[in-house]
Amino acid sequence: MTLIEATLARITPLDTTLLQQTQTRLDNKTKPPGSLGRLEEFARKIVAISGTPTPDLSKKVIFTFAGDHGVVEEGVSAFPKEVTPQMVFNFLQGGAGVNVLARHAGAEVRIVDVGVDFDFENCPGLIHKKVARGTRNLAKGPAMTPTETLQALAVGIELADQCKAEGVGLVGTGDMGIGNTTPSSAIIAAIGGFLPEQVTHRGTGINDQALQLKINAIRRGLEHNYPDAADPLDVLAKVGGLEIAAIAGLVLGCAANRIPVVIDGFISTAGALIASELHPDLHEYLFAAHESVEVGHSFMLERIGSSPILDLELRLGEGTGAALAMHLIEAGVKILLEMATFEQAGVSEKQE
Amino acid sequence: MTLIEATLARITPLDTTLLQQTQTRLDNKTKPPGSLGRLEEFARKIVAISGTPTPDLSKKVIFTFAGDHGVVEEGVSAFPKEVTPQMVFNFLQGGAGVNVLARHAGAEVRIVDVGVDFDFENCPGLIHKKVARGTRNLAKGPAMTPTETLQALAVGIELADQCKAEGVGLVGTGDMGIGNTTPSSAIIAAIGGFLPEQVTHRGTGINDQALQLKINAIRRGLEHNYPDAADPLDVLAKVGGLEIAAIAGLVLGCAANRIPVVIDGFISTAGALIASELHPDLHEYLFAAHESVEVGHSFMLERIGSSPILDLELRLGEGTGAALAMHLIEAGVKILLEMATFEQAGVSEKQE
Repeated sequence: MTLIEATLARITPLDTTLLQQTQTRLDNKTKPPGSLGRLEEFARKIVAISGTPTPDLSKKVIFTFAGDHGVVEEGVSAFPKEVTPQMVFNFLQGGAGVNVLARHAGAEVRIVDVGVDFDFENCPGLIHKKVARGTRNLAKGPAMTPTETLQALAVGIELADQCKAEGVGLVGTGDMGIGNTTPSSAIIAAIGGFLPEQVTHRGTGINDQALQLKINAIRRGLEHNYPDAADPLDVLAKVGGLEIAAIAGLVLGCAANRIPVVIDGFISTAGALIASELHPDLHEYLFAAHESVEVGHSFMLERIGSSPILDLELRLGEGTGAALAMHLIEAGVKILLEMATFEQAGVSEKQE
Repeated sequence: MTLIEATLARITPLDTTLLQQTQTRLDNKTKPPGSLGRLEEFARKIVAISGTPTPDLSKKVIFTFAGDHGVVEEGVSAFPKEVTPQMVFNFLQGGAGVNVLARHAGAEVRIVDVGVDFDFENCPGLIHKKVARGTRNLAKGPAMTPTETLQALAVGIELADQCKAEGVGLVGTGDMGIGNTTPSSAIIAAIGGFLPEQVTHRGTGINDQALQLKINAIRRGLEHNYPDAADPLDVLAKVGGLEIAAIAGLVLGCAANRIPVVIDGFISTAGALIASELHPDLHEYLFAAHESVEVGHSFMLERIGSSPILDLELRLGEGTGAALAMHLIEAGVKILLEMATFEQAGVSEKQE
């Protein structure tokens, strides 16, 4: 059995009894039943995923996976490729958006080099898991070999296993990779059967000319590679990316380890989509942080079966949306653990 | 000049230069321009409201105003009236929803008795500002006298003045009052010219019979009292409530003192609507925490000119939504203050 097969075999549906028991506990709190809306959903789900009536979310980790993309040579991005390693240094120094928002949420950020086209040396804090120095140009052939794809997936799975050993209560996904909305849109087009122009948007803010280059690159990628929509790993290898594969692996690994996982935005959701296509119960372990402004994101969330928590018009990635959503998910758990019951507070219950 | 007139005279439009300067600062941060969406809007607005380039939101306070409602004798609520003082004790002991969520957001909760039908004694922490022991039954006549209305407004204004003196950076509104969705719906109907059944919903979870009683009570209230839609204080007095008036006063006082204020849900928005009808620039000082599930809430937010931050299907009140939104507003300010610029981080900027 391969690592992927073994990981998929560990994922089981949530215990509906635990979901119901948790709702009963919530209904005894001093509030009208159901009046905290989705916070109650978050509490039910976290209990059922973790399998404990008193989930501990004090340890929260966001993984930001960095990788480069051969397809940038097609002119698909507004930023030069050098920005990927530059941003890795920015993450390590704590100055990027995800650092600020993770600190605000009480979460730790871990930066993983899974495929940056740069030799990192003397980089305290960087998790070295480089599979390759970026992908190949998907417009001209497969972005990754099957072996590279499995290696990148394994990076994510192994980090999830390590989180279980550390007692991490909530994991978030994040990405950094100049050009990586292009493979993400290509994955949506391949799996959903869309035309590239239906699911391709402006990423970091490209102009009309670059948008056309991006659409053309995806069209050529789909024509040359013929990704098989029924085989998510084939789609991932041919038109995906190393950081997207690592995110897919992280998500699978979290579900296998019963760790709830918050999916960031567009790129993270492309990784989660691959994972979700591999296992029908995966969505039960996921929280969709937010509705991205990128076209095609809502299709992915619907296909996965996940409803976004926030809609703040974010399009930065890195794990920034995941950091914001973590605070709200933890709020739901605190309602369950800290609020007084009607009996404890001496408050009269609802009249029939 | 009355206190209300003097307070209204202190409210001025925001400085558009400050808004633009703040956006320029945000555009120098290591991210594509505009990619943090509404977080950037929050940062711009907080700078312009507070008038300082480095706003300090470390001190955050949520005011939960408690009051009773004579209209409960019409059978409009699922909970008995005794729950209002019982919940006040729950707040003071730290066991209610708003206590849990405010602690999570790093905010302090202050409980104000502005009109509970109960004699509080030996209640450390309670702010005693009782104007009356509840309102009269709005279905039969005016809920409040003009004097009571002005007294309750003054409670909110004075608390805002005190916040300025203490250096509070962000204020949230909250409410507790069994029956108080009824006056809130009556305010919407009076100001928007709606039929009661168009803007009346299930509050804490009433059944069909109680919903019909509630609609009938509002209809009779509007018929007997003839509130003047062009005179917001007349509407407030005739079909409003003491805690709603205090919230309106708090909102006006915060704007006059240049303190940003987060409006909680349905009842708080009814108070903010009265305030907004009194001054055309008021909305610039407001943040709408969330979209409530109560019918009529979206009308109020549109009329005020405020777009809700969250949509988590909340309908508890107390200030719970305000507490959750505070974290997101503060996130925007931290982006402005803590993120590295392209120059600081040595990251290449966007190519034209």
